[in-house]
Amino acid sequence: MAPITNARVYFNEIPTGLPEPGKTVIYDESQTIDLENVPLHGGFLMKTLVVSIDPYLRGKMRDTSIRTYSKPYHVGETLYNFGVGVVLRSEHPDVKPGEHYSGYVYFQQYEIHKDLKNPILRKIDNEFNLPWSTYVGTLGMPGKTAYFGWNEFSHPEKGDTVFVSGGAGPVGSLVIQLAKAQGLKVIASAGSEEKVAFIKKVGADVAFNYKTTDTNEVLKKEGPVNIYWDNVGGPTLEAALENSAVESRFIECGMISGYNDEGYPIRNLNLVFQNSIIMSGFIVFRPKLVNKYEEIFYKVLPEKVAKGEIKLNEDLTEGLKNVGQAILDVQLGRNTGKKVIVVASE
Amino acid sequence: MAPITNARVYFNEIPTGLPEPGKTVIYDESQTIDLENVPLHGGFLMKTLVVSIDPYLRGKMRDTSIRTYSKPYHVGETLYNFGVGVVLRSEHPDVKPGEHYSGYVYFQQYEIHKDLKNPILRKIDNEFNLPWSTYVGTLGMPGKTAYFGWNEFSHPEKGDTVFVSGGAGPVGSLVIQLAKAQGLKVIASAGSEEKVAFIKKVGADVAFNYKTTDTNEVLKKEGPVNIYWDNVGGPTLEAALENSAVESRFIECGMISGYNDEGYPIRNLNLVFQNSIIMSGFIVFRPKLVNKYEEIFYKVLPEKVAKGEIKLNEDLTEGLKNVGQAILDVQLGRNTGKKVIVVASE
Repeated sequence: MAPITNARVYFNEIPTGLPEPGKTVIYDESQTIDLENVPLHGGFLMKTLVVSIDPYLRGKMRDTSIRTYSKPYHVGETLYNFGVGVVLRSEHPDVKPGEHYSGYVYFQQYEIHKDLKNPILRKIDNEFNLPWSTYVGTLGMPGKTAYFGWNEFSHPEKGDTVFVSGGAGPVGSLVIQLAKAQGLKVIASAGSEEKVAFIKKVGADVAFNYKTTDTNEVLKKEGPVNIYWDNVGGPTLEAALENSAVESRFIECGMISGYNDEGYPIRNLNLVFQNSIIMSGFIVFRPKLVNKYEEIFYKVLPEKVAKGEIKLNEDLTEGLKNVGQAILDVQLGRNTGKKVIVVASE
Repeated sequence: MAPITNARVYFNEIPTGLPEPGKTVIYDESQTIDLENVPLHGGFLMKTLVVSIDPYLRGKMRDTSIRTYSKPYHVGETLYNFGVGVVLRSEHPDVKPGEHYSGYVYFQQYEIHKDLKNPILRKIDNEFNLPWSTYVGTLGMPGKTAYFGWNEFSHPEKGDTVFVSGGAGPVGSLVIQLAKAQGLKVIASAGSEEKVAFIKKVGADVAFNYKTTDTNEVLKKEGPVNIYWDNVGGPTLEAALENSAVESRFIECGMISGYNDEGYPIRNLNLVFQNSIIMSGFIVFRPKLVNKYEEIFYKVLPEKVAKGEIKLNEDLTEGLKNVGQAILDVQLGRNTGKKVIVVASE
C-alpha cells in the first residue's frame, strides 16, 4: 500500500496570553506513513482514535527553562496528551492488533510505540462498550483527579456543605456526584446557563452561573463551606475563603482563572489560619495517590458510568485540524463538556 | 485595710493602622479595691503577676461586627489575654490562697474570678521553679502553638529542610528546636541581628535577617523547603512557595505582616497544586488539638525548659502602664524576645 498522510499538530510558538489557533499550534499534513511496511523495531503501530483537550495544557506552553509538575512542549514538537488508540500491527509480545490502549499519545494520526512503559499505556478492555472518549474524561485523567482528590482530601462529615467551582467540567461534575453520593449538600458554579443545567442534572442542590450571580452572595446564603473543591482560583477562591467554615477543607485542583495571565493575587489567605483550614493541593500523577486509588478507580467507575449512575457530559470535535481552536475554547470555558478531539473512528 | 489602687488597661479606640500607645489602649488608675473586704461571692481574688503581649491581640482590636476566631475587644472593656496570677483570698472549695493559675486574665492588678471554668484557669505547680513569665511564653499559648502545630501538621521525613519565619519569637524558636531535635536542616529568619543571633543559639543551621538578606536567594541556595512554618505571611510566604519542594507541608500559624493593613496579596498560590502542597492553617485553641496534645505538652516541656534543653528568650517590661507601647513594639517586631508585662512580684 502506498504511503498515506499522517497528519499531526505541533507546538509552534509560546503564547503570551491566550493560545491562538493557527499560531500557537499548527496543523500539519506534510508527513506520510506506509502503514503496512513501516518498520516497528519490536514495537507496535497504533492508530489514534481520541485525544483529550485539558485546561492544564496551557501550562505546557511555556518557556522550557521554567520547571513545574508537567514537562513543557518544545517548539516544533508534536503535541501530546491523554488519548486512546487501537493497535494496527505489532511486533511486541504483549500487544496484539485490535487491542486498545490509553495513555499519552501524540496528536498525530498514526504512531509507533516502542513498549507499554514509556509513556505508560494501559490496555482498555472496555467490557461495557463505552465510547473511547470516556477513557480520557470521566474514566481518564479528569475522572481520576476527582476520585483520587475527593477520597484523599475531602474528609466529609455528616451535614457538610460542599462548594465546587468549575462544576460542569469532567472533574467538577464527578466531584459533585461523589459528594451527593455521600449525602452532602452541594453548591456548584459554572460559566453558562447550559453548564448550570448540567450541574443540576448531576444532582447539585444549588447551581449558579458565576458570570451573572455573585459567588459571595450565594455562599453567604447557602454556606458556610466545609469542603471547597477549587478548579478555578482567583476571586472564586477568595469568596470560598470568605465563607469558609471552621476546620474546612480546601482541595486545590487547579486555577484556570490564572493560566493565561500573571494570576490573580489572593487577598484573604489569612483565613487559612483564622478558620483552621487545611488546603490540599495535588496533581493526580503523584505516585502515592496513583498507588492508593488507581486500581479501585478502574474497578468501580466504568460500571457506574455504564449504568448511568455517574453522568457525564462530553463536547466532541472531529479532526486534528480543530485542535488549536479547541485548546483556546477550553481556556475560555467555551466548551460545553469534556473536550475531546475524535481523530478517527476504527 | 483601706482600698488601694487597682490599675488597669482598657481598650479605647479601634486603630486604623498600627495601635497607638495612649490612644488605642489607656492606662487607668481610677479604680480601687479593698483586698481584705471585697466580697468574693464564692469565688476567689487573684493578684495578677504577668500578662502576655502577643501579635494576635491586634486582631481583637477591630469592629465588633467582624467575626473571626478570636472575640473582639469592646471599647471601654479592660484588656485581657494570657497571664498568671496568685490567689490572695478564696471562697472557692478547689482554690487556695498562694496557688498560681494561668489562663485568660484581665490587664488589671487584682481580679475576682467566679470559678476555674470561664475563662479556663489551669493550676501551675511549677515544680521546677521557673519564672512565671515562662508560663505565658514557651510553656503557654505560644509554646503550645509550636508544639501542637508541629506535631500535628509537619509530618517530618528524614532529610527534610525546614524554613521558619519569625524564628526568634516564642513560637518560631520552639519550632526550630523541635525540628532540630528530629535531625532536620533548619533555615530561619528574623528582623534584627540580635534575633538572628538567638536563632543561631537555638540551633538553626541557617539564620538570616530578612531585612538585609533576600529570602528568595537564601531559599534558592539552601532549599527547596519541605516544611514551611509561617508566622508572617506576605512576601516571605511567596518566597517559600517559590522554593517549595514537591509534597511540602506549609503550616500557617500567623501572618503578622498583614495585621496592620489590608494584607499582602499572595500571587503564586498556584504552586499549592503544582507542587502538591498541604497547607494547614490552625489556631491553637481548636478542641481536637487541645485534647490531643495539651497533657503531653505540660508533661514534657517544663522539664526540658528547666534543664535548658529548650532555650527561650524573653523581653520583660514592668508595669501595666507600658502595655500600649509593648503592643505596638510587638506589631513592629521591636521586641527582642517573648514580650511579657510583669505586673507585680509576689
